[in-house]
Amino acid sequence: MAQEEGKKKISMGVVMERMKKLPVSLWKTLYQVGRDDPRRVIHALKVGTALTLVSLLYLLEPLFEGVGQNAMWAVMTVVVVLEFTAGATLCKGLNRGLGTMMAGSLSFLIDYVAEESGKVCRAVFIGVSVFLIGSVATYVRFIPHIKKNYDYGVLVFILTFNLITVSSFRVTNVLKIARERVYNIAIGCGICLCMTLLILPNWSGRDLHKSTVDKLEVLARSIQACVHDYFEDNIDEMSSQDDIKKGYKTVLDSKATDESLALFASWEPRYSMKCSRYPWHRYVKLGTILRHFAYTAVSLHGCLESEIQTPLSIRSMFREPCINVASEATQILMHLANSIRNREQCCSDTLSDRLQEALHNLNCAIKSQPRLFISSGNHNSTSNFSGHLKNDHHSTSNFSGYLKKDHHSSANFSGGLKNDKASPSFTSPSLRNDAFSATLEYRSKRFIEQSKQPGDKRVLNTTLSKLAITSLEFSEALPFAAFASLLVEMVARLDLVIREVEELGRAAHFKKSSEIDEIKVDMKDEFKMSNMSLREMPSDVRLHGAE
Amino acid sequence: MAQEEGKKKISMGVVMERMKKLPVSLWKTLYQVGRDDPRRVIHALKVGTALTLVSLLYLLEPLFEGVGQNAMWAVMTVVVVLEFTAGATLCKGLNRGLGTMMAGSLSFLIDYVAEESGKVCRAVFIGVSVFLIGSVATYVRFIPHIKKNYDYGVLVFILTFNLITVSSFRVTNVLKIARERVYNIAIGCGICLCMTLLILPNWSGRDLHKSTVDKLEVLARSIQACVHDYFEDNIDEMSSQDDIKKGYKTVLDSKATDESLALFASWEPRYSMKCSRYPWHRYVKLGTILRHFAYTAVSLHGCLESEIQTPLSIRSMFREPCINVASEATQILMHLANSIRNREQCCSDTLSDRLQEALHNLNCAIKSQPRLFISSGNHNSTSNFSGHLKNDHHSTSNFSGYLKKDHHSSANFSGGLKNDKASPSFTSPSLRNDAFSATLEYRSKRFIEQSKQPGDKRVLNTTLSKLAITSLEFSEALPFAAFASLLVEMVARLDLVIREVEELGRAAHFKKSSEIDEIKVDMKDEFKMSNMSLREMPSDVRLHGAE
Repeated sequence: MAQEEGKKKISMGVVMERMKKLPVSLWKTLYQVGRDDPRRVIHALKVGTALTLVSLLYLLEPLFEGVGQNAMWAVMTVVVVLEFTAGATLCKGLNRGLGTMMAGSLSFLIDYVAEESGKVCRAVFIGVSVFLIGSVATYVRFIPHIKKNYDYGVLVFILTFNLITVSSFRVTNVLKIARERVYNIAIGCGICLCMTLLILPNWSGRDLHKSTVDKLEVLARSIQACVHDYFEDNIDEMSSQDDIKKGYKTVLDSKATDESLALFASWEPRYSMKCSRYPWHRYVKLGTILRHFAYTAVSLHGCLESEIQTPLSIRSMFREPCINVASEATQILMHLANSIRNREQCCSDTLSDRLQEALHNLNCAIKSQPRLFISSGNHNSTSNFSGHLKNDHHSTSNFSGYLKKDHHSSANFSGGLKNDKASPSFTSPSLRNDAFSATLEYRSKRFIEQSKQPGDKRVLNTTLSKLAITSLEFSEALPFAAFASLLVEMVARLDLVIREVEELGRAAHFKKSSEIDEIKVDMKDEFKMSNMSLREMPSDVRLHGAE
Repeated sequence: MAQEEGKKKISMGVVMERMKKLPVSLWKTLYQVGRDDPRRVIHALKVGTALTLVSLLYLLEPLFEGVGQNAMWAVMTVVVVLEFTAGATLCKGLNRGLGTMMAGSLSFLIDYVAEESGKVCRAVFIGVSVFLIGSVATYVRFIPHIKKNYDYGVLVFILTFNLITVSSFRVTNVLKIARERVYNIAIGCGICLCMTLLILPNWSGRDLHKSTVDKLEVLARSIQACVHDYFEDNIDEMSSQDDIKKGYKTVLDSKATDESLALFASWEPRYSMKCSRYPWHRYVKLGTILRHFAYTAVSLHGCLESEIQTPLSIRSMFREPCINVASEATQILMHLANSIRNREQCCSDTLSDRLQEALHNLNCAIKSQPRLFISSGNHNSTSNFSGHLKNDHHSTSNFSGYLKKDHHSSANFSGGLKNDKASPSFTSPSLRNDAFSATLEYRSKRFIEQSKQPGDKRVLNTTLSKLAITSLEFSEALPFAAFASLLVEMVARLDLVIREVEELGRAAHFKKSSEIDEIKVDMKDEFKMSNMSLREMPSDVRLHGAE
């Protein structure tokens, strides 16, 4: 008993503690919501104002005498129609208006037809028409085009039709009621439109525009951070990892938001008074292409998180060219973001050229180190082969020796290699590799045999893949090859992005950009420095550590 | 004039033509909507029935005398609350109920406070409270948790509060009206619940369950088709490409649907009467992991579409091991899908083992062909180096010679290599490669010089990236390396999928599966055959074409 009481006391204490914390956490949440987007506060005040205005219909005597008896329709309209952005409000308002009109006409028609018949007959007729119209309209809501554009309109249609048809059965003067309702709904809609269009309007189109710019920038930062982290030894800065993830997640999850914003934006009055429709669907298409681009970012990030990794010593050799490609791609993305932000037609010729150059340098760097793809497995080989290896001038360990002397000059290695052109031929790599693969075969046979023992199957399975992947000693250069290939793939997809942004610029009649020199790309200083140092370094400055 | 009239006639003709086609196309659309999901027809009929039932409140004399005067609330409730799935209806119904209750209580409280004061004072008090409550409630809707779970409830709260507070200003007997409204809303909700829970219910939970199974199957097919197509020469079957794309697109775009289904499912009565909540959030998490898995499918598909490709002759050498890995992964995915479908705890030990074996074989195959990564560039090299190449017993062309003799036995090549252990050493690959890279350097310099000529910048830029990428002659084996690496990455992510499905099985108390032997995986016969033939082939049957 005492224990139970004690428990009760403790749980009461916990509850009290929580109750005490509740106001603070609630306040924090409310503050956060407002700080994330201050327009939310304004919107809340606007709704409050609109509701107060509409309730004046009831509160003020002259208004009430005129149209106020059915003021609840105006209240309902304001509550339901007034949305955060102008486009959404217009979309809902027009849908509501259209639905009400059509339902009103139809129900008057049915009322007219049923008028002549007797009471029972009329009731049956109304019942049947309610069933039929209700079923058909509900079914129509499933058509994708209707669902996307007019879902709310059909809902209002069903609602209004039922209300009018059913109430017409008891009420004699339907026309008067209908007229008053229409007045009220018109007043409600009018207040909503004033609030949404005239007082501090939030445009869906502007949000879509801004979110597109943000997505480009976020992707740029993600790619840069990704490639940078790949060549770092200790990536325990979880914050940077989270940034990368958050970056591409924003882009990947943007589909639904983009589409609804574009839908609402298409209801908004155009920015310009040109006859052509503003091409919001182009933004959606650009969003799709950016998502496609973001998949590469995910894969690049996957390279970072992968359990099989090319040793850092090998990776570091390609540090400069890879980072160069990434930073040029980043600059292009930033440039595209800026051109969209300023509504200028993009002109990324120079940047593209530089990107091609960077890509070419990466290619050269990879071409100059072909032997990596043979000697990569040596780290894990048994002692039998290390003897061979020590005689090998070009083995990985030697490369890492170079690296220790100068950590940041991968360009030098190709120079180093070129000086070795006349070096004597050495142990056949295929020979070395065959012996190595024989060992591997033996090992793997043992691994499979082990895993086929009946008793410990469960234990093995828990970490099976992890174990297997790390023990497989997959050709060590392979992960880097994938990374490099993904970089190239990224460049190919970047091209699609550039073309789509150009299309968007043309379709939306963005102004022609005056000068490319004005590009202001805010890059991290660090990368600027590394690029500068690489570019300014004379190509014949080389280390000859091995000689 | 005649021309204009002609145009008018033509446009009239076009319009008439369209009008004639409209009923047919409308009918087709309606038929398609019903065929896609026959439950839609049933739902439409259910809504019709519910509306007819609720309109009886008006039509039948005794009911009207009792509660029918406010029947519009019942109609409104039915129209707004009755949704496609049981979970959604319950969610909306309970939200509506909760919102109405809270708003009713609050407005009575305010009415009670304002009762004593004079008319003007009371009007001001009501106006201020409408403004404050409206603003605060609208602001609260922006809190993510509220937005996700109770958005509709807050909307109803605002609506009801305004209606009651404002109408209480003019009407004396508020309590009677309120009571009647509550009755009507209760009747409406009751009809909705009967329709949704008792008559052919559609469960969100079941949809979520089914869509999860579908996603697993669709991914399995995508991966299989992807890897299969990678080793085909003529991939002009656009249908298969579309299938792959449609496959992973379904998975990638499923986030919003999954989340709303899980939300609605959490409102549904549980399948079992166990005390624990059914773990719908686990399905959402599995969906997230499947999307993560699908990014690899996108990247794999990217390898297919890439402009830089490893020559088919080289790719074909790794056909069997790659397809093996893919088909084992496919089998695991199919097995997982089946285990979820049958609500069995998954037990993929044997399949996992086979996957590891397949992965190991792929590793061996890659290890046994290290020289590919050197000789890959030879196809494009200038004639100076082809002389060297012809002396090289192990050059790519010889491999393709092997290939022509037996197209489906890459496993043999490692055997072939092993017999060559004692072969004489040959031209140093590094020497060959250095000369080659020198040529490349020259070429690329010319390429950059060309692109720097001022005149034709615009022309170059249009197809710049495309041109550059194909002309860069990126180490040809690199794309395949990326492909193989992605396969391994896929296996690593598959492990996450397996673990999550196991977690789901435990959390949802799926029954323990009886026997692994009962696994029925419907694989394409083709792959079954190819796997069988590879497995049953004795390992010492080898081709010695080169000897």
